[in-house]
Amino acid sequence: MAETILTQAEFDNRIKKAQAVLAKTDLDAFLVFSTESEPAGVRYFSDYWPSFETAGVLITRDGEAALIVGPETLTYASARSKLATVIQTMDFRESSQPDYPGSTHPDWKAIMKRFSVRKLGITGFHMFPYTIMCNIADALGGTENIVNADAILRPVFMKKSPLELECLRKSAKISEIGFKAILENIKPGMTEVELCGIATAAMLANGAETTGYPIWCCSGPNSDQAISRPSLRKVGTGEIIHFSIGAKVEGYSSSIGRPVVLGKCPDEIRKFMQVGLDALNMDFDLMRAGVKASDVAKKVHGYITDQGYGDAILYGPAHGCGQMECEYPFLETSSDYILEEDMTFMGDVFLHRNGMGFRWEDGLIVRADGPAEELSSFGRQINILEV
Amino acid sequence: MAETILTQAEFDNRIKKAQAVLAKTDLDAFLVFSTESEPAGVRYFSDYWPSFETAGVLITRDGEAALIVGPETLTYASARSKLATVIQTMDFRESSQPDYPGSTHPDWKAIMKRFSVRKLGITGFHMFPYTIMCNIADALGGTENIVNADAILRPVFMKKSPLELECLRKSAKISEIGFKAILENIKPGMTEVELCGIATAAMLANGAETTGYPIWCCSGPNSDQAISRPSLRKVGTGEIIHFSIGAKVEGYSSSIGRPVVLGKCPDEIRKFMQVGLDALNMDFDLMRAGVKASDVAKKVHGYITDQGYGDAILYGPAHGCGQMECEYPFLETSSDYILEEDMTFMGDVFLHRNGMGFRWEDGLIVRADGPAEELSSFGRQINILEV
Repeated sequence: MAETILTQAEFDNRIKKAQAVLAKTDLDAFLVFSTESEPAGVRYFSDYWPSFETAGVLITRDGEAALIVGPETLTYASARSKLATVIQTMDFRESSQPDYPGSTHPDWKAIMKRFSVRKLGITGFHMFPYTIMCNIADALGGTENIVNADAILRPVFMKKSPLELECLRKSAKISEIGFKAILENIKPGMTEVELCGIATAAMLANGAETTGYPIWCCSGPNSDQAISRPSLRKVGTGEIIHFSIGAKVEGYSSSIGRPVVLGKCPDEIRKFMQVGLDALNMDFDLMRAGVKASDVAKKVHGYITDQGYGDAILYGPAHGCGQMECEYPFLETSSDYILEEDMTFMGDVFLHRNGMGFRWEDGLIVRADGPAEELSSFGRQINILEV
Repeated sequence: MAETILTQAEFDNRIKKAQAVLAKTDLDAFLVFSTESEPAGVRYFSDYWPSFETAGVLITRDGEAALIVGPETLTYASARSKLATVIQTMDFRESSQPDYPGSTHPDWKAIMKRFSVRKLGITGFHMFPYTIMCNIADALGGTENIVNADAILRPVFMKKSPLELECLRKSAKISEIGFKAILENIKPGMTEVELCGIATAAMLANGAETTGYPIWCCSGPNSDQAISRPSLRKVGTGEIIHFSIGAKVEGYSSSIGRPVVLGKCPDEIRKFMQVGLDALNMDFDLMRAGVKASDVAKKVHGYITDQGYGDAILYGPAHGCGQMECEYPFLETSSDYILEEDMTFMGDVFLHRNGMGFRWEDGLIVRADGPAEELSSFGRQINILEV
């Protein structure tokens, strides 16, 4: 197998950290839940991430931990799992609910009994399926024995370990390779999806295990979209074409966001993009350990507003990153937490007005003294390309 | 915009079909739910599919229909939606639960009141989040006013329209381009993910809007995995390397599955692959309108067993396809439904034994007279490539 950054000791330590948090609660176990498009929690504790099916990691007070998967992924899960115990259960099968005639996998009653769980904390709570919740409640004697544990377990994820930081740095470097491939190949008339394909192939040939999320290219009228999908629209000259490109490395997703203009760039667009770029650059300087998150958001939004673009703001200028390219905590004008060393964020300035917009985005690591460590600055400039 | 196969009339007709089904129930509306990795239902009725957030389509008895999205995707959703009404609600935000200070989107009480819904059928029921279910139950006066509508709405999806069949045919043709790029470029020492990147770029440059699912390449010991993810393992000679490659076209996902061997192929592997190939070929002949699904599964499994590979079977030899590469109905030895014209399937034979395996897979359309229409047969042969 390829050389990896994360070690078995790193995974063992994660279970210990969860166990330490559990010890301070009245819960018998955590059940960490993940899906194909939201794999973070299960990947963090087991290194496995689901495809088609869903999955969970059960962690008990005495440090026992099991990866729980659906009926079709035992070989895949066992090959990837850093947890020795892998259990299958029908509730984690595909949402189309295949039959599997003759299957004899344990149900929740059997699983909860095996691990002596009477009171359970569930993470990924807001995406946890209703039907599975009912089955677990039935096994535990009622929903009063189930707790939303997202906020409880969060301290385990918030500050990154040295190896996690390495994964994020590598993710950003490979994301740069994806964006570089776009700069070298983009021509008017190429489709948005084609450009995403070029970036994807470049990243996968250079160490990414996949993209960090469904990457996108938004051009012309589509540039107005903050969250999007690339389309079959052909990119043209004199319009904003913005890219969100991210590589996944051992579960970790950084990203780089850049607008590009082909050919002549109208002054109005150049000025608009420059205000966003200046705003993103403020993040790196302002985001330091000990600073209140909302103060950063207010200052960055204040700058954008002072420049006359307050109406173009959609959301706060940064959000947590790690296994999810976008994870808790968010940095909004209402965020009252204090930034700490080794917290990791995406500085993310999306502005849109009059049917066009763009995103400037780069990862950062909060430092105790001085400005944040920038995970990438490649191509973070007004990119107007000759055609 | 690029020329599309699906028309506004096709989407209008889908709402009418759902309305006709609804008229036979005591429900006031359907809420069709989808996620980033399970976009099928919402895409079917609105042409929009979520990224990061979740989404729903509400369809009422009088044929009113609304796309309901989260707080961050209004411009993206409005640009894609074939439904004129697009509503935002906080419950469909990202699972990491961003704040959105000052947001004033309607809650479920307001939405249900606006559309006069007292009794609701939900599809995507088995992945529907518990917390959202509680909020809707609160709006409707209890879970007794909510019904699992997956089976109720299924008849709308089961037989494909002429335009849907066109999308699936195109998806298969573009998937072939992805596999062809692999055949032309594969060399020992390339990584599994790199090969997936090559296929992805080729498909996205040739009309795919994305891959149909997280496509994979499984080599050597990884070939044992039925559902998987490509890894950074380098492919070698004399081992099974199997590919599942699928392009998405206007929401429709066909796929092709093929094993490949580089260099000299051990006789044992060649014979094993041939049995699987023969089994898949049986699907096209046996799957005809009027035939009982379980009879096909029994015959195909019987053949594999007669050849001495019964222990290598993991699941039935076909599954429905359409907007999901794998959707209801499944074709198992327990499937008691009758095949009908214009039902679409993936013939899918996965066999594994002694730590190695492979998948042969191709799409098909059930025909009234004679064998099924094969969506692809490109490279459906024992592929042993010189190195």
